[in-house]
Amino acid sequence: MADVGVTGAEALVLAAVRDGVRVCFANPGTTEMPLVAALDRVSGMRAVLGLHENVCTGAADGYARIAQHPAMTLLHLGPGLANGLANLHNARRARTPLVNVVGDHASWHLPFDAPLTSDIAALAATVGRVRTVCDRTDMGTATRAAIDAAHRGLGVSTLIVPADHQQAQLAQEPAGEADREPVERSGRARVGSDRVKDVAARLRDAGEHATLLIGGNGLTRAGQQAAARIASSLGTALYSETFPARAERGGGLPDIDRLPYFPEQAAAALRRGLVVVAGAEDPVAYFGYAGVPSLLARPGDLIRLARPLEDAEEALVELADMLGAASWPARTPTAAVPIPDGSEPLTGRTVGQAVAAALPEGAIVSVEGGTCGYPFYSASAAAPAHTVLTNTGGAIGQGLPCALGAAIAAPKRPVIAIQSDGSGLYTAQALWSMSREHTDVIVLIAANHTYNVLRTELGRHDNTDFGPQAAALTSLAKPRIDWVALSTGFGVPAERASTVAHLRTALTDAAADGGPHLIEMAL
Amino acid sequence: MADVGVTGAEALVLAAVRDGVRVCFANPGTTEMPLVAALDRVSGMRAVLGLHENVCTGAADGYARIAQHPAMTLLHLGPGLANGLANLHNARRARTPLVNVVGDHASWHLPFDAPLTSDIAALAATVGRVRTVCDRTDMGTATRAAIDAAHRGLGVSTLIVPADHQQAQLAQEPAGEADREPVERSGRARVGSDRVKDVAARLRDAGEHATLLIGGNGLTRAGQQAAARIASSLGTALYSETFPARAERGGGLPDIDRLPYFPEQAAAALRRGLVVVAGAEDPVAYFGYAGVPSLLARPGDLIRLARPLEDAEEALVELADMLGAASWPARTPTAAVPIPDGSEPLTGRTVGQAVAAALPEGAIVSVEGGTCGYPFYSASAAAPAHTVLTNTGGAIGQGLPCALGAAIAAPKRPVIAIQSDGSGLYTAQALWSMSREHTDVIVLIAANHTYNVLRTELGRHDNTDFGPQAAALTSLAKPRIDWVALSTGFGVPAERASTVAHLRTALTDAAADGGPHLIEMAL
Repeated sequence: MADVGVTGAEALVLAAVRDGVRVCFANPGTTEMPLVAALDRVSGMRAVLGLHENVCTGAADGYARIAQHPAMTLLHLGPGLANGLANLHNARRARTPLVNVVGDHASWHLPFDAPLTSDIAALAATVGRVRTVCDRTDMGTATRAAIDAAHRGLGVSTLIVPADHQQAQLAQEPAGEADREPVERSGRARVGSDRVKDVAARLRDAGEHATLLIGGNGLTRAGQQAAARIASSLGTALYSETFPARAERGGGLPDIDRLPYFPEQAAAALRRGLVVVAGAEDPVAYFGYAGVPSLLARPGDLIRLARPLEDAEEALVELADMLGAASWPARTPTAAVPIPDGSEPLTGRTVGQAVAAALPEGAIVSVEGGTCGYPFYSASAAAPAHTVLTNTGGAIGQGLPCALGAAIAAPKRPVIAIQSDGSGLYTAQALWSMSREHTDVIVLIAANHTYNVLRTELGRHDNTDFGPQAAALTSLAKPRIDWVALSTGFGVPAERASTVAHLRTALTDAAADGGPHLIEMAL
Repeated sequence: MADVGVTGAEALVLAAVRDGVRVCFANPGTTEMPLVAALDRVSGMRAVLGLHENVCTGAADGYARIAQHPAMTLLHLGPGLANGLANLHNARRARTPLVNVVGDHASWHLPFDAPLTSDIAALAATVGRVRTVCDRTDMGTATRAAIDAAHRGLGVSTLIVPADHQQAQLAQEPAGEADREPVERSGRARVGSDRVKDVAARLRDAGEHATLLIGGNGLTRAGQQAAARIASSLGTALYSETFPARAERGGGLPDIDRLPYFPEQAAAALRRGLVVVAGAEDPVAYFGYAGVPSLLARPGDLIRLARPLEDAEEALVELADMLGAASWPARTPTAAVPIPDGSEPLTGRTVGQAVAAALPEGAIVSVEGGTCGYPFYSASAAAPAHTVLTNTGGAIGQGLPCALGAAIAAPKRPVIAIQSDGSGLYTAQALWSMSREHTDVIVLIAANHTYNVLRTELGRHDNTDFGPQAAALTSLAKPRIDWVALSTGFGVPAERASTVAHLRTALTDAAADGGPHLIEMAL
């Protein structure tokens, strides 16, 4: 195709395909029609429609967390971008490589301030890098630069593409585009040995009075094994960051708990002395509470083995070796997953245990919401090897799109979404894309019909006697959402379960049937 | 309450209530809990929960279009605001008074960049005025200033309220707050008589070679009647802006068509010579198309009687009087609504006619999407008096929230939402709030299972042979959305209709039953 004329839109898609972008999560509009046409004229890019942009951006995040290379989105003007910003916020916090393509009015039409005109660049800048294509011949290089930025971990990388530059006919692709080298996947920066040596010395001094807080790629299997070697050698305490973008779990890995969510408990967990951060952000309270410090470790206690964009896995291995820690046993005896009785009602605990016990080898579990999410994480250490994805930025409505994207990145791996109901209602449209794309996703809705976390928070603000409006604002009852009906409406078969036995049967049946399924768990 | 201690949050709600804000469309989170508690401790503010922020902001827009004074929203941090931006964009284009309240982290917690931290002010600035409360004693005055700005038509007025300032105990409300005068509802600026005189002279010279394009409050009953007097006196052509925020219609009003959507037809409609704009924006193409000018009137032909924030109604009346136009007859004979045969299948035309024929006096009709929206508007001129609300900014997902807000503003008026399916899927969660609030809204879904406007646009870009991905990206089939199931899931009774007779029966039954109903119209 490169030796015949191409449109600007085709040059963009060609450049993206050449640099390994294979999936486009899209909800296009009028200003993106040349790009839509280009998705058929250039081969190699799969288009996935989301019924709302926050499905597209959340799916692109989930995709890249599993695929380890970026997908592209295609969004319509400022409002389309705005709709997808919440999950771009989560992607930014996950440091997910993501190429966010937003159409704009033809450049000559912008000064007329037509109804859909808005400040797209200002919106995009809140989640990362942004560049507007200002010349039609620039399409390929601008795309390449956006992908490069995504790979270098510069947050979400947005490319704004005016419609006239998409439509423009180029005599041919700019010289050198067709046979250039793909963007270098630069990977994570190495941690210098001097720093590893310093940390090793501090850890030896601290002995049991130290805690290792792991995040980023410290949560690979190798990273966790290295951390566990250090812990068993020195008696160091181990925690994972509270909301990892991606954590390997089970299959004989050490049971590394997540740092508690509430700051009092988190600060208590970090109070034994030295706190070594490896791949995680500095530990900070999720919200500020009067009388509770924002930084959860004493500043003098905090040292960094690897910052979030650095190679924490490698640094942990080097550190473990340097400390002379014994190698990680090929297979440690782990506790069996506790198995609740079939007649038990569904609670956070019984759901967490039942799902962990039923987890197939290699599953991907997208977790959003605390009700079942925390108990599952506790139970799943003893399950077969699996990957957990969590909500990194706190913008709710992330779990279902993330599961969709993960399933598209790894079509052979079973995906389970453990989803609280309040957050699930933000992006329930993801169910439709799961159906259309025939993804093997089992969605488990924790239906307690409240914004439970807010009830807890109201209590923290000394409002234990909720007034009627506060009660109504934190309730999803009156009327109760019927998730089975919603799911059916979006084309995903669904059923309701209220006991452990019923949940188990539903899980087995869904897995046997294939394709997406939803189980509303009456908690 | 003013003589005992109040929290900052209570001071905010007190100030809002004092200035006539009576409804808060909310989806709060942890950082807004003091405001949630204040909604019970201060009387006079009704809280309405939306399951997604774009429901809240769209409802606040619809509310104010009908109530003519602002509602308040309550949104959670940057991601909550981001979720509601699309309908704030529409509100900005509608010039709707709207007070947008967004919580933020405690001010002392912000520097720690906790996961939910983002640049809220940058997001808010894309839709209007923004101010962050920086001192706890400032709460009342900041609220008052935000309401004042909303009244003065300065777009969406956002107040960012850090959690610590919400929680702070004030010994008492700041002096003078309790007994101050309410914010002046300054209303629209008067158009000077000199300008009206100039326009009268130009119109007299142009005679039949002139077009009057009406928008804003030129679309009140009095405004339209004055415009019709001018038109019948001079032979001037008349058009309404294409997407009015609020237009009165029927009940003997002149049948003023909307300026066509596509620029070629719109430019042709404005080609007879002088174009006088009254309350509308300058006529600009919705999208830019190569070879078609952005400005739809020749620049030399365009003059402005009233700009969008000016009082177009009064200026039109003054102009009609100045031209000596005969007064508008108390009741003009209007054509009867054409009534389709009961056995006819549902199409845009038959739906438009059947709904217009069944329209009760005083109805509010929220229209989103072209399939049935345009035919309804054509048919409804002969219907009883009603009010039409349209999507002013083109950010889809506006129709259902707008209908919800309108129903809360006018609980005694029946509300009908004529809603295309693609856009309806953006904010289907509004159905749940309609159910919870027992609003009399009948939702009519035009279920053609495509993004039809995009098929048309693809054709305009010379892509009449859609490739398979373009076809998939503009299709809502595979699987088909089951709106009856979705609606039931959200607690709104629903049925499906495929003939005119069935639609008529469903409309009658829904109105008789009261409360919200949804009818999926199989087109």
